[in-house]
Amino acid sequence: MPLVVVGSVALDTIETPSERRDEVLGGSAVYFSYAASYFTPVRLVAAVGDDWPAEHTELLKARQIDTTGLQVIRGAKTFRWHGRYAENMNDRETVEVQLNVMDQFDPLLPESYRRCQYLFLANGSTRLQLKVLDQAPGVNLAVADTMDLWINTEREELMELLRRVDGLVLNDSEAKLLTGETNLVRAGHHVRRMGPSFVVIKKGEHGAMFFSRHETYVLPAYPTERVVDPTGAGDSFAGGMMGYLAEEGNFEPTTLKKAMAYGILVASFTVEQFSVEGLQRTDRDALERRMREYQQMLTF
Amino acid sequence: MPLVVVGSVALDTIETPSERRDEVLGGSAVYFSYAASYFTPVRLVAAVGDDWPAEHTELLKARQIDTTGLQVIRGAKTFRWHGRYAENMNDRETVEVQLNVMDQFDPLLPESYRRCQYLFLANGSTRLQLKVLDQAPGVNLAVADTMDLWINTEREELMELLRRVDGLVLNDSEAKLLTGETNLVRAGHHVRRMGPSFVVIKKGEHGAMFFSRHETYVLPAYPTERVVDPTGAGDSFAGGMMGYLAEEGNFEPTTLKKAMAYGILVASFTVEQFSVEGLQRTDRDALERRMREYQQMLTF
Repeated sequence: MPLVVVGSVALDTIETPSERRDEVLGGSAVYFSYAASYFTPVRLVAAVGDDWPAEHTELLKARQIDTTGLQVIRGAKTFRWHGRYAENMNDRETVEVQLNVMDQFDPLLPESYRRCQYLFLANGSTRLQLKVLDQAPGVNLAVADTMDLWINTEREELMELLRRVDGLVLNDSEAKLLTGETNLVRAGHHVRRMGPSFVVIKKGEHGAMFFSRHETYVLPAYPTERVVDPTGAGDSFAGGMMGYLAEEGNFEPTTLKKAMAYGILVASFTVEQFSVEGLQRTDRDALERRMREYQQMLTF
Repeated sequence: MPLVVVGSVALDTIETPSERRDEVLGGSAVYFSYAASYFTPVRLVAAVGDDWPAEHTELLKARQIDTTGLQVIRGAKTFRWHGRYAENMNDRETVEVQLNVMDQFDPLLPESYRRCQYLFLANGSTRLQLKVLDQAPGVNLAVADTMDLWINTEREELMELLRRVDGLVLNDSEAKLLTGETNLVRAGHHVRRMGPSFVVIKKGEHGAMFFSRHETYVLPAYPTERVVDPTGAGDSFAGGMMGYLAEEGNFEPTTLKKAMAYGILVASFTVEQFSVEGLQRTDRDALERRMREYQQMLTF
């Protein structure tokens, strides 16, 4: 089944302790789409400026990603993010953000997207996420991401969003911020009681936790010694997870757990290279090999 | 098979954000023995002062723990540790340490212990750990724990120890300190190349990683929302792991992985109560039920 994602497209400048890359392809919707495209056709909604390199659009199209919903705003510049990773490759500081076109982004689902039954609202303003939900009344599974900024500045809207989506994906510190809980198991169920049927807490190098009314579980990250650039790991995780759900066409508990595992494995390819290079070099076969290895790892 | 452990016995004062307990039963060898005693007879080597409450010894004996090697030093006081946990229940500060009898502790394996084939050197001075190894030349599997203090102050002795033991158990920050690596997968294999056949890195609430020449894997912690007192979780983990290996009488790769899982589960009972109360209230049946649940959690 096709899958719609609404989010950001960016030109990222990344500094790690050993290397720097300038204005490479990035953004939540890009990582998500790339990751999901292993599994299912993806339909992208985002905005870029007229400085956007056309080859990036070609790259997305080459992966079966429908870019009809990619608005090119004349006279505006593409969103830019500049981040620097600490020695441990987990902590990072934002050196600079140029919102640019994101300031004017008004997400519009093209007519051809509106019958899609799987929708992901990547990290972005909660107001805009609600506006997208309004345009997709027939959606079967709507899942959102969020971050500290919106938890702090659009809390009321976020509470409405939580009552309207089926799932929420957020990271560990955000879950603690949103709930005031310090224990992640309590935090996960607390978020779930705010509305969504399921909640996923991303723990970076420590994997991800899942919470529904009847289930609580955690899956570890795939252990890799090659961490080149963690940017986009969380969005790739969500893309792998949602992509598999859309491919299977259901979100039963057993499908959801396998989807979590795919999300974790796709993210492990992302962090092994800069930008989406790790995903570009990977194919479904490599992903399935890693899945067998991962399942073997968790069998005793 | 019986299992020998050499380590500390303590009276702990624990402060958590919600409660305080004074002078409760603690120490690395106590948590280890209690945890291991689900699986196999344990033989304890440690020292206490003449202020040691006799009922604590009875408590250990009631669990099939042989206390022949528990030296009571006349005129000395028992080791005391006082710790305070932060709101997140992970960070803790040491309020006070009274080494007392630990200053004079000269571990001696009773004659009846010397034919034991499974030996665990709980956290303690590396010099003393080496001294114990000298007394057990016929040991089949020797595994040690260590900590930042010994990595910093007895590095040369630690390098000798690593060449002589079969396995090392340490936590994530200690593995980084010992190797200078920031990536845990690289750190684990780096420690392994220092000598031991296998290395286990404990990650607290995030589980544990295993490294041997041919294997790298990670198992998540059992997700519990009831974290009352994390003291002794690492020692309980080691006790569960070594106890199961001694029970099985081998340390083949498949046995080692299941032993890791038992270690994780035993530790989950420890953190659910103060001191060894969580272990006291648990039996092998409860442990097996949690094991089935844990295996189910990791199956997809």
